[in-house]
Amino acid sequence: MIKEVCNVLTKVREKTPLVHAITNYVTINDCANILLAFGASPAMAEAYDETYDFAKISSSIYINLGTLTKEQEQAMIMAVLSAKNNNIPVVLDPVACGAIKRKIDFIQRIFEVGKVDIIKGNLGEIKYLAGYEAKVRGVDSVDDGSNSVEACVSLARKRSCVVAATGVQDIITDGERIAIIENGTNLLTLVTGAGCMVGALTAATAAVEEDKFFAAIASILSMNLAGEHASKTAKAPGSFKVKLIDEIFLLREENLEKEGRIQWI
Amino acid sequence: MIKEVCNVLTKVREKTPLVHAITNYVTINDCANILLAFGASPAMAEAYDETYDFAKISSSIYINLGTLTKEQEQAMIMAVLSAKNNNIPVVLDPVACGAIKRKIDFIQRIFEVGKVDIIKGNLGEIKYLAGYEAKVRGVDSVDDGSNSVEACVSLARKRSCVVAATGVQDIITDGERIAIIENGTNLLTLVTGAGCMVGALTAATAAVEEDKFFAAIASILSMNLAGEHASKTAKAPGSFKVKLIDEIFLLREENLEKEGRIQWI
Amino acid sequence: MIKEVCNVLTKVREKTPLVHAITNYVTINDCANILLAFGASPAMAEAYDETYDFAKISSSIYINLGTLTKEQEQAMIMAVLSAKNNNIPVVLDPVACGAIKRKIDFIQRIFEVGKVDIIKGNLGEIKYLAGYEAKVRGVDSVDDGSNSVEACVSLARKRSCVVAATGVQDIITDGERIAIIENGTNLLTLVTGAGCMVGALTAATAAVEEDKFFAAIASILSMNLAGEHASKTAKAPGSFKVKLIDEIFLLREENLEKEGRIQWI
Repeated sequence: MIKEVCNVLTKVREKTPLVHAITNYVTINDCANILLAFGASPAMAEAYDETYDFAKISSSIYINLGTLTKEQEQAMIMAVLSAKNNNIPVVLDPVACGAIKRKIDFIQRIFEVGKVDIIKGNLGEIKYLAGYEAKVRGVDSVDDGSNSVEACVSLARKRSCVVAATGVQDIITDGERIAIIENGTNLLTLVTGAGCMVGALTAATAAVEEDKFFAAIASILSMNLAGEHASKTAKAPGSFKVKLIDEIFLLREENLEKEGRIQWI
Repeated sequence: MIKEVCNVLTKVREKTPLVHAITNYVTINDCANILLAFGASPAMAEAYDETYDFAKISSSIYINLGTLTKEQEQAMIMAVLSAKNNNIPVVLDPVACGAIKRKIDFIQRIFEVGKVDIIKGNLGEIKYLAGYEAKVRGVDSVDDGSNSVEACVSLARKRSCVVAATGVQDIITDGERIAIIENGTNLLTLVTGAGCMVGALTAATAAVEEDKFFAAIASILSMNLAGEHASKTAKAPGSFKVKLIDEIFLLREENLEKEGRIQWI
Repeated sequence: MIKEVCNVLTKVREKTPLVHAITNYVTINDCANILLAFGASPAMAEAYDETYDFAKISSSIYINLGTLTKEQEQAMIMAVLSAKNNNIPVVLDPVACGAIKRKIDFIQRIFEVGKVDIIKGNLGEIKYLAGYEAKVRGVDSVDDGSNSVEACVSLARKRSCVVAATGVQDIITDGERIAIIENGTNLLTLVTGAGCMVGALTAATAAVEEDKFFAAIASILSMNLAGEHASKTAKAPGSFKVKLIDEIFLLREENLEKEGRIQWI
């Protein structure tokens, strides 16, 4: 594994980035706990008259559209506007954008008033955003994976940002470089919010690593390895989620070096 | 145990119903995780301009009145209206309706604009809705159980739906048939949201089983058996909740067949 | 350890106080579960037209400013007004008041329309409220602890209430008496909501103990001891949180008597 990716984990622990997350209420607790376990400092300010100023003092911003209340919508607009004005990295998680039309309009607004450094979604969401035919069901992707890399590259170029699509394989691209991560475990699909958690971790890595392509690889690889470690002793989803947080806490730079299986294209 | 009930568990795993839950923020994460562990696919869309359309693509809808924000109230109205127009099964969980008057008015509105297939509440809530004297304390029932079956039957007939009242014994009725489940463990009362979780599971079973009387029996029996299994190794509530999710995941049709203790009246 | 403090734990289990919590969505589930494990009965009513009446039937009220939505703000105002009119104990948790200006204005309003019996915050929040220079970062205190006791006493006198500041050492004072708790474990800082949970427990103890100075000592000491117990077997934050709930459930009056390390000043 290349050094630039592995280093990111150590940088998170050294810098304790303050990650400002505006995220869905289903998995907000898990996002906060996994950020703490990863070495970051989570904060979930989301009142619309708090987020512009709070974004200024944050190391990065995580925007997750899972349960998009009207007040969250306003709060997110103020946060991404502040991020643009104050040069704070933003990670966008376009949850269920393929199933709920309103989210597409809102994503367009985010790009108009703010900026996004990394879009992290499941494969169905990413393909949908890229304008490809995508198979989604509720908040899940049931896509067969055809044209996946092409869709990610296309979206990355269209939006001038890094794109990370999670699935059986995870695809990360900045429109030029492409990485495909082959680590992971199927148990991650049995825990709600595995995607949200990896999005939150991506905001932590984006806060400390200038090259957002490496930042996204580092967070997704970390989650997948923690999942692999947890699955060695936990075989059912309740125990697995507990172990997953433990294993993110216990993960070290050398785990990424030795265990990461990445195709560089 | 009769085959119609036991089959439901297998049907959930085969069909992976998409359960659209609008539920309280206290236990929303647990509801999502237990639905995944059960074999269903949870989705928590709750913005008022999302729920009418989202209900259309859902297999069933779970409406839980625990923390009923104004936006959730609107979202629920749109969801149950859509359910009526599109013939989607609805499970209503009238949390704390005996302690908070506004909830009674809102339940009346739900029946006026939408439809409900199953009302699942604790005994105090069900008796209160049936117009019987009920002893409640905050969100808990402290009812002594007198006239319980009578109250359930009365409510089922009044609302033309299945009624499920949870307690030391669980009573399920469609107004004609009555089942009393004797499985369970007291540890379930020490975990917040055991009632919400069983409500969410009932939405999953209602999605796959035409006879809602059997659907409600299957979900409540599943929860009680998972609780019994979890209580064998977990004696305190933190560990018990983790184990409960594991045991829902591990539950099989033969567990229901062999271990279910039901009085049919 | 003095008897008045240890007794509080037993009183909670005997009286099962109904704790009405209006709290942030990040840790609302943990607050409910730890209250149940402690022996209290949690209820999270937070619609603004519910809280005035619900406060009347509650044993105490917990107000936590973590994610302060507009609807929560209204709900809190109605709850503390009801608490004043109906003489219900109130515990205030001024989360992130040092980082977000709006919260200071809101706290002022709470004191104008309602009443507060105990302010429980981290050291940075308490010093900030007392008008001292405080080092905060997002929702965390990174204060070095200078003038801590002085700040706590000053705030207690200014607001005529008990003040509890959590940190490496925990300081509790009513403006005259001062207690410093030396128990605890660093693992508590790796779990989101450890502060919220101890705030919720403080509402439980305030409900059953007339002397709010002893009430606050009892809840914070209980949390610290449960943390110490949990840390014996759980070394990473996922497992630790599960164990923490278990250990609160298993805690007995004699644990406080034998293991409590308190300086009385």
